[in-house]
Amino acid sequence: MSEETRLERGLRTRARIFGEEGEERRQAFAEASPAFAQFVTESVYGDLYARDGIDDKTRETVILSVLCAQGRDREFGYHAKAALRIGMTKEEIQEIILICAIYAGAPNAVGATDESLRVFKEFGV
Amino acid sequence: MSEETRLERGLRTRARIFGEEGEERRQAFAEASPAFAQFVTESVYGDLYARDGIDDKTRETVILSVLCAQGRDREFGYHAKAALRIGMTKEEIQEIILICAIYAGAPNAVGATDESLRVFKEFGV
Amino acid sequence: MSEETRLERGLRTRARIFGEEGEERRQAFAEASPAFAQFVTESVYGDLYARDGIDDKTRETVILSVLCAQGRDREFGYHAKAALRIGMTKEEIQEIILICAIYAGAPNAVGATDESLRVFKEFGV
Amino acid sequence: MSEETRLERGLRTRARIFGEEGEERRQAFAEASPAFAQFVTESVYGDLYARDGIDDKTRETVILSVLCAQGRDREFGYHAKAALRIGMTKEEIQEIILICAIYAGAPNAVGATDESLRVFKEFGV
Amino acid sequence: MSEETRLERGLRTRARIFGEEGEERRQAFAEASPAFAQFVTESVYGDLYARDGIDDKTRETVILSVLCAQGRDREFGYHAKAALRIGMTKEEIQEIILICAIYAGAPNAVGATDESLRVFKEFGV
Amino acid sequence: MSEETRLERGLRTRARIFGEEGEERRQAFAEASPAFAQFVTESVYGDLYARDGIDDKTRETVILSVLCAQGRDREFGYHAKAALRIGMTKEEIQEIILICAIYAGAPNAVGATDESLRVFKEFGV
Repeated sequence: MSEETRLERGLRTRARIFGEEGEERRQAFAEASPAFAQFVTESVYGDLYARDGIDDKTRETVILSVLCAQGRDREFGYHAKAALRIGMTKEEIQEIILICAIYAGAPNAVGATDESLRVFKEFGV
Repeated sequence: MSEETRLERGLRTRARIFGEEGEERRQAFAEASPAFAQFVTESVYGDLYARDGIDDKTRETVILSVLCAQGRDREFGYHAKAALRIGMTKEEIQEIILICAIYAGAPNAVGATDESLRVFKEFGV
Repeated sequence: MSEETRLERGLRTRARIFGEEGEERRQAFAEASPAFAQFVTESVYGDLYARDGIDDKTRETVILSVLCAQGRDREFGYHAKAALRIGMTKEEIQEIILICAIYAGAPNAVGATDESLRVFKEFGV
Repeated sequence: MSEETRLERGLRTRARIFGEEGEERRQAFAEASPAFAQFVTESVYGDLYARDGIDDKTRETVILSVLCAQGRDREFGYHAKAALRIGMTKEEIQEIILICAIYAGAPNAVGATDESLRVFKEFGV
Repeated sequence: MSEETRLERGLRTRARIFGEEGEERRQAFAEASPAFAQFVTESVYGDLYARDGIDDKTRETVILSVLCAQGRDREFGYHAKAALRIGMTKEEIQEIILICAIYAGAPNAVGATDESLRVFKEFGV
Repeated sequence: MSEETRLERGLRTRARIFGEEGEERRQAFAEASPAFAQFVTESVYGDLYARDGIDDKTRETVILSVLCAQGRDREFGYHAKAALRIGMTKEEIQEIILICAIYAGAPNAVGATDESLRVFKEFGV
């Protein structure tokens, strides 16, 4: 019986976290840069997301915090959806942003809040 | 019976998380800027750290991630100590940095790793 | 006679600086994250903006500079409006951006300039 | 015979790199901040871009890398066009982004990739 | 009677703002990169610092805010000295940092505070 | 005949670019975080540095630019050494920093210049 490759594992993980929307983004992305798309699918989703030492919720907590600190509002929105999908609550996302407001500066937290408001409405939470 | 003020609660929380070292830093800090020291103790440690919606470990996960994304190595070291003090393991800190390596860039994760190595040695973990 | 609370003072200050538009943003914001909205209104607008040691124009100079350095164009636009409302001139905003061009990098200053152009047109200055 | 001024040399260089689109942006820009527009045209395009020690392709490599690290997606798009105009290939831009993914973090590289996809389509490459 | 060149004006301005210490830094700097040293002296100190639309104190307010937002503690210290030299008070620097704490994040403001403490002691303020 | 693994290729590339000093850093690093060290050696040095589409000098140009934009002075020094080792000249590094001064802000370029001065002296260039 053949073992799952890094690529296969990455695609499977990606689907679990981002759903259909993620697959559409991945395809547009692969068109823009096949090598980068491969790196992300294999090294990020295939290797890192498969590690035992960290659970899905903690990983998304790290990612949301970094995205807020970088002021990447749009990507914060993508991962706010991912966070809700893997079981994080609206309240937990709000608490993460609140801590970020102090450490990453209020403007970055404001951007993340605006983006999360859109996501909360889309998910009806 | 008198209620605890925001300042008292902040000082107590600060001591729990940073120990004696934190108290020394706070005093030097209060000398440099009394108003900023008061804001941090009251609004950050007194108010935010007292909220129910987020536990100590998740809060430190957010803070470590933001500090890594900002490239603030020294402050990452302070909070790596705080994280160990409130019960996070060495392995959990390493996993946080690993995720940051991808999202916040390898150089910021390298800086955080160097700093954490110092902290791990100091704590004998 | 009852004293003004931190919240009341914050709401009053916010209205003075951002006008009606600010109140609309605050309400959308409070919906997305009540605790963050409260923190901003009380600790930022209620406490910090009420301090004597810094006047409105200097405070907005600091905020505009930070927002430009962070590349937060949209929020720069909000505060460019606030700056005009509290009496800063178009020329002063342009000079701030020019200094930022050197210290925060030309691309961030370009983003702030584009945003300020929109604001100048809206205000007819 | 009169020598070219810094301003004239800057305008000529700017036209070579950004084409007509750049001239439109420059005019809107000069309206928003004449002093900043003059600084950019004279000191950046007139002086720095005229230096011998660095060729057009290396200069755009530096600029694209900085813009990706800053997360300035829109300006990355402007310079991706400039890069194609001065002879860089689509593949070279993709390789630059791929290195940035590791050093500047995946989210910034994702933003640059999305922007470059738009540019590649516009240029039919 | 000959007019002052951009370079001469830049050197004179630099001396006024940074004193002897600045001249030592400039010489080490000119050794590392003559072209960059020339650009800074001419375009920054010779042109921008000579502009009428902004006074010394407002300019240093902008620079301190940007440096705090970038987390460049050491350079914050250089400009805290410059600020004291051109007449800003210790209290004004503290107020700038306090606003930055909210907008640029507490860790960047902590770094600036530590640096300013050193400067305040050196200046005996 | 056995093929080289990703790890072996990474170790070989790393040695070529960073020399002995890099190996010492790698070992300290592997002690602090084995998983991160493995990721860097395999995915960064083993995969990305082995790609055909970009030569060593262009890759280091990208990396130096990103590090300057992030204000990571120390890591800029490491890669300034790597750049000299793979054949970049002192003058080319100076030109890169000069472009960064405009795009990434003068303070980040000042930090990179100070660091490069140390490296130039160590290499006697």
